Amino acid sequence: VRRDAARPGVEPHDPPPTTEPMRLHAMDVWVSDAAVLRDAARLRSVLRAGAAAGGATVVGESFCEFPGGGVTGVLVLAQSHLSIHTWPERALANVDLLTCGAVRGDLVLGAIRALLRAKRFDVACIPRALA
Amino acid sequence: VRRDAARPGVEPHDPPPTTEPMRLHAMDVWVSDAAVLRDAARLRSVLRAGAAAGGATVVGESFCEFPGGGVTGVLVLAQSHLSIHTWPERALANVDLLTCGAVRGDLVLGAIRALLRAKRFDVACIPRALA
Repeated sequence: VRRDAARPGVEPHDPPPTTEPMRLHAMDVWVSDAAVLRDAARLRSVLRAGAAAGGATVVGESFCEFPGGGVTGVLVLAQSHLSIHTWPERALANVDLLTCGAVRGDLVLGAIRALLRAKRFDVACIPRALA
Repeated sequence: VRRDAARPGVEPHDPPPTTEPMRLHAMDVWVSDAAVLRDAARLRSVLRAGAAAGGATVVGESFCEFPGGGVTGVLVLAQSHLSIHTWPERALANVDLLTCGAVRGDLVLGAIRALLRAKRFDVACIPRALA
């Protein structure tokens, strides 16, 4: 079992103001050059840069490289999580961000698209329960 | 950096048959007794039991306990990921499952609801790109 200690000073989930509900952002993104989708170290940097761009705090992570070149990576955030699953053979990545509090999901996903050099993407956003 | 080696024999993502597209299952679940939502070890068992019930293979994980009692846990699956975020003060958990291949999302979520002793829940399911 890996259990990351919460960082001192990290609030027990950022209490979301009522104007900022919990949201799930689901993005499918197609890239021009699929090489990045096989590079776990680079994908880790991309996710961390995305989290930083949106004001999220990373408190844990888990990455897995699959024999065929696909990578799964998850960052555990103080404001929920950010994950990526890559399919290099399809030049495709599925990115999921669950947010609460003041995290700017649009900035997180925008930074990830820029760093992956996206040529096409779809985003769905669904509100989630908080009470 | 934690990087879990893919297990020998684990295929590079289970290639999904065309009848089983990639799907995101987003469940919000309210429980009668919030004690389970503060218990990271028990939540880890709940997620693993859910994954097993639906035929998913766990290849990595990351858990984080927050000072206020909330827990975030993510299992990295050979077929994507399964996450939970708990809000004990609201008797609420947000559960997200991204699946490809033959994983039975309904069985995963049903097992989790049973083990958490859910009294109410909402599920949304959205299809995701594969090509």
